[in-house]
Amino acid sequence: MKDINDLQLLIDEEIRTQYRILEPRELYEPMWYALSSGGKRLRPVIVLMGCQLFSDDLKRAALPALGIEMFHNFTLLHDDIMDKAFMRRNLPTVHIKWDVNRAILSGDALAIQSNIFISSCDKEILPDVLRVFNTTALQVCEGQQYDLNFERLEEVSVSEYLNMIRLKTAVLIAGSLQIGALIGGADPHSASRVYELGDMIGMAFQLQDDYLDTFGNPVTFGKNIGGDILANKKTYLLIKARELANPEQVELLKHYYSSEDFDADEKIRSVKKVFHDLEIDKITIDRVHEYSNKALEILSDIPVALPRKVELDKFTRNLMDRIR
Amino acid sequence: MKDINDLQLLIDEEIRTQYRILEPRELYEPMWYALSSGGKRLRPVIVLMGCQLFSDDLKRAALPALGIEMFHNFTLLHDDIMDKAFMRRNLPTVHIKWDVNRAILSGDALAIQSNIFISSCDKEILPDVLRVFNTTALQVCEGQQYDLNFERLEEVSVSEYLNMIRLKTAVLIAGSLQIGALIGGADPHSASRVYELGDMIGMAFQLQDDYLDTFGNPVTFGKNIGGDILANKKTYLLIKARELANPEQVELLKHYYSSEDFDADEKIRSVKKVFHDLEIDKITIDRVHEYSNKALEILSDIPVALPRKVELDKFTRNLMDRIR
Repeated sequence: MKDINDLQLLIDEEIRTQYRILEPRELYEPMWYALSSGGKRLRPVIVLMGCQLFSDDLKRAALPALGIEMFHNFTLLHDDIMDKAFMRRNLPTVHIKWDVNRAILSGDALAIQSNIFISSCDKEILPDVLRVFNTTALQVCEGQQYDLNFERLEEVSVSEYLNMIRLKTAVLIAGSLQIGALIGGADPHSASRVYELGDMIGMAFQLQDDYLDTFGNPVTFGKNIGGDILANKKTYLLIKARELANPEQVELLKHYYSSEDFDADEKIRSVKKVFHDLEIDKITIDRVHEYSNKALEILSDIPVALPRKVELDKFTRNLMDRIR
Repeated sequence: MKDINDLQLLIDEEIRTQYRILEPRELYEPMWYALSSGGKRLRPVIVLMGCQLFSDDLKRAALPALGIEMFHNFTLLHDDIMDKAFMRRNLPTVHIKWDVNRAILSGDALAIQSNIFISSCDKEILPDVLRVFNTTALQVCEGQQYDLNFERLEEVSVSEYLNMIRLKTAVLIAGSLQIGALIGGADPHSASRVYELGDMIGMAFQLQDDYLDTFGNPVTFGKNIGGDILANKKTYLLIKARELANPEQVELLKHYYSSEDFDADEKIRSVKKVFHDLEIDKITIDRVHEYSNKALEILSDIPVALPRKVELDKFTRNLMDRIR
């Protein structure tokens, strides 16, 4: 069995194998710039873990896995335009390094190339794989639209927020795991259980991300702590806090979220204190554990030998450990 | 056999059948706004004509044909952002009616929905259909990038221009015809001949479009005559004129293409006179005839009964007749 590091190496090797700047360079350069800029390779690794649940032949999942990574990078290129993001993975975003047109068009090309790589799977499973992939892809767009809508809404409920992150983040992780499982030869029932497993992992992953952005360890998190607070982002933490806040805390949050014009440290400190007083950190940790535990439960049900499950088990427990 | 009007009706009916505004409305409204705004339905009709070459069962090509129309509209939404186009089919473009973010994201959703509809074809031909479609889709992006590059280039050669319009326009018409043929049951050899046929039709179509924009009849063309000249567009007409112009004509063209700051009528009249003096209209007509005649030649070779070819024959001859 291969562990996560092995799987990441397999993905990086596949990227090196496929890397080629075709003509016109203006189209292909930004594609590979985005793909080569690192990142955790979470989604393609998930594809391989899904495959490994049912088969040792991970090679045939490598190209579809790269396709999933390309699809993810396509969404990042376009989201970064919409969100006016300047930096990603410590590099300027594509629309900043080049321009918006290049980011739109090379994003489109990434999406199409992702279709090509995903369609490289066996003819027999192609219709099922495409059904999962295309459904997922459309949901990711829906999630991004809800996220854009939320920016302009005064109030977002917890259930609206959970629906948004399910669409924007969890379904792609679920779809990735299921596509891997289908390539590995999973029967239809197991494949759909695997999807639910991925869904739970995806929800835990996003809530963990929300948590770490505010309460994480600056050394291990890799991003600046408090970025979501400074950007007035409606995260699970804020939405839950608003739900539980007393009138005084409501006013305090309203004050700090009314503009971006505060001393950064003061704003982060004050908002974190409200979150802490309301035990939002604990509540979020509990939610992550809830989703992770459901994931572990489904994983234990999947009828394959234990060693095949080890990596997904470790990965899921790690989601909990990082925020314990 | 169904004629072009029947086929257009079939497409419009399919659009009405599939029309539904899902949630979030902000994503799906612009998709159907673009799709419902009319247009010639050229590409989906081409899919149906490709199918009709080999089969009477056009129903099973209807959804993939709509997929092709959706893909085309996806490229229009994004191209209109890049080209800063305000109007299309006498309506405001999506990024003007709503905003750039909506146009990017609903364009992405159109592309994904097009994949879903195209993948609805029979399992047996799905890998072939996807190979044609995805290859074509990537080439369309390449064509758009070359088109963007050309705006900033001083000199573009005739062969560079022909390569650009092949990628940006002809391959999608070729791919549409081939996908229709595959759905209709074409053998591999016929399917690839059909692609070449579509390629010739596509080239003739785009050069005809260049011609009509300058020399067309304002009543039947539907757009204002001279739009390409006013926008300083590097069309076949201009590139060929520059190639053949004497020093005086070179200066005149340089003068009028140095800015957009001229009296519109004067600029159109003066440039048209240079084109006319150089017989660019005649040269362009000859090119359209060349491509159309090659198309007719390939069509006559395709081993199916004559009645199946009637509509494509009429369509191709019509390309020539409109500019004779």
